[in-house]
Amino acid sequence: MSRNAAPAVALLSGGLDSATALAWARAQGFECHALTIDYGQRHRVEIEAARRVVASLGIADHRIVSADLRAFGGSALTAAIDVPKERPLEEMASGIPVSYVPARNTVLLALALAHAETLGAVDLVAGMNALDYSGYPDCRPEFLRAFEEVARLGTKAGVEGARFTVHAPLMALDKAGIVKLGRSLGIDFGLTHSCYDPEPDGVACGACDACQLRLKGFREAGVHDPVRYRAPISPRG
Amino acid sequence: MSRNAAPAVALLSGGLDSATALAWARAQGFECHALTIDYGQRHRVEIEAARRVVASLGIADHRIVSADLRAFGGSALTAAIDVPKERPLEEMASGIPVSYVPARNTVLLALALAHAETLGAVDLVAGMNALDYSGYPDCRPEFLRAFEEVARLGTKAGVEGARFTVHAPLMALDKAGIVKLGRSLGIDFGLTHSCYDPEPDGVACGACDACQLRLKGFREAGVHDPVRYRAPISPRG
Repeated sequence: MSRNAAPAVALLSGGLDSATALAWARAQGFECHALTIDYGQRHRVEIEAARRVVASLGIADHRIVSADLRAFGGSALTAAIDVPKERPLEEMASGIPVSYVPARNTVLLALALAHAETLGAVDLVAGMNALDYSGYPDCRPEFLRAFEEVARLGTKAGVEGARFTVHAPLMALDKAGIVKLGRSLGIDFGLTHSCYDPEPDGVACGACDACQLRLKGFREAGVHDPVRYRAPISPRG
Repeated sequence: MSRNAAPAVALLSGGLDSATALAWARAQGFECHALTIDYGQRHRVEIEAARRVVASLGIADHRIVSADLRAFGGSALTAAIDVPKERPLEEMASGIPVSYVPARNTVLLALALAHAETLGAVDLVAGMNALDYSGYPDCRPEFLRAFEEVARLGTKAGVEGARFTVHAPLMALDKAGIVKLGRSLGIDFGLTHSCYDPEPDGVACGACDACQLRLKGFREAGVHDPVRYRAPISPRG
């Protein structure tokens, strides 16, 4: 990494996507500051995954900040709402699932912006992708462009001329493409966590939307997924 | 209040401005859901003030959610940076003070949006005003309009056609105007807290920017400020 690398704040959930986005940012030469938000998510074992990913990539700065969205609920990830299982892929692709957390990515990006402005960074990095989950509104490019405008208008740095960019290097990739990119960047996939409804020890259910999309991506990429699943998997789709 | 009142999420710090904005929203007939963010602010006694204000206005729903911006620092309100005292008003009016918290209002509005979407509300209420502190970038109307666009594009409700509005009824008022509006709405000013650097028991310093602006506003409005100050006050300006 260049000694004069620009700082960037990379949102890292601990999942496959954000780990790949972080590795991408590192490969671009950014001085990466990883930021994990503990928003009270049901699958908080992903925060341990985030720690493992940061260690494996040799990222020096990793902050874990709490913003408890369980205070509002409204999602299968933050309230007592069942995580859907064994949904056909075509059903996943239509409409916004109950795992959508109201305004989550706005909250995550706002916190990343606060961190970035304090660091003097104008680059944010996140793992959103619009392809597999076209239903998640806050994973679309037009949302990210609107957030950049908020960042420009709502910060001291922006008033002083800074232009913030939200880099979403996975935006146009499907899960198989993300797996391939992650492999090319040397990600140890076994360190990541994707399941929305894991066992207490972190073993993935294999049946929630996140597990199914992950398994499909690895299968289509022709790559072995090293994480542990609860039961023998017969992915659909 | 009408039985069919629209729900609104009102950000309430416990200060004069947000208390007045909340009372305004109640007077407009909104079913008010008060939201206080504990962001690790130095003057956390304002959270107790928020509780008092909510009780006095008879607001049924008040949530206090933590999002610890001390993890990033960068402000006299969230880091070991001295709160400026006895600054001349003309100095306050020029430039962004060290009490500016990087991206704070983006974080606060993001959390309010998460709450609103969960409730099915499209109205947010906040106490920003652009006049007294023209230096705070995230108190300007253009910032709020940009945030509304983020809300439209980044939520399920927005995708489904909802249009979010950030109401900032104090935007064009100076502090004296806010005091007058607050009085007309029956605010008990003694319950509010504005000081950035209070004594542990909540007594205001009388010398920080927030105290000076408050005192000036009350003086110009010809209204007595019932909060307790540390020393005899000789406000400038």
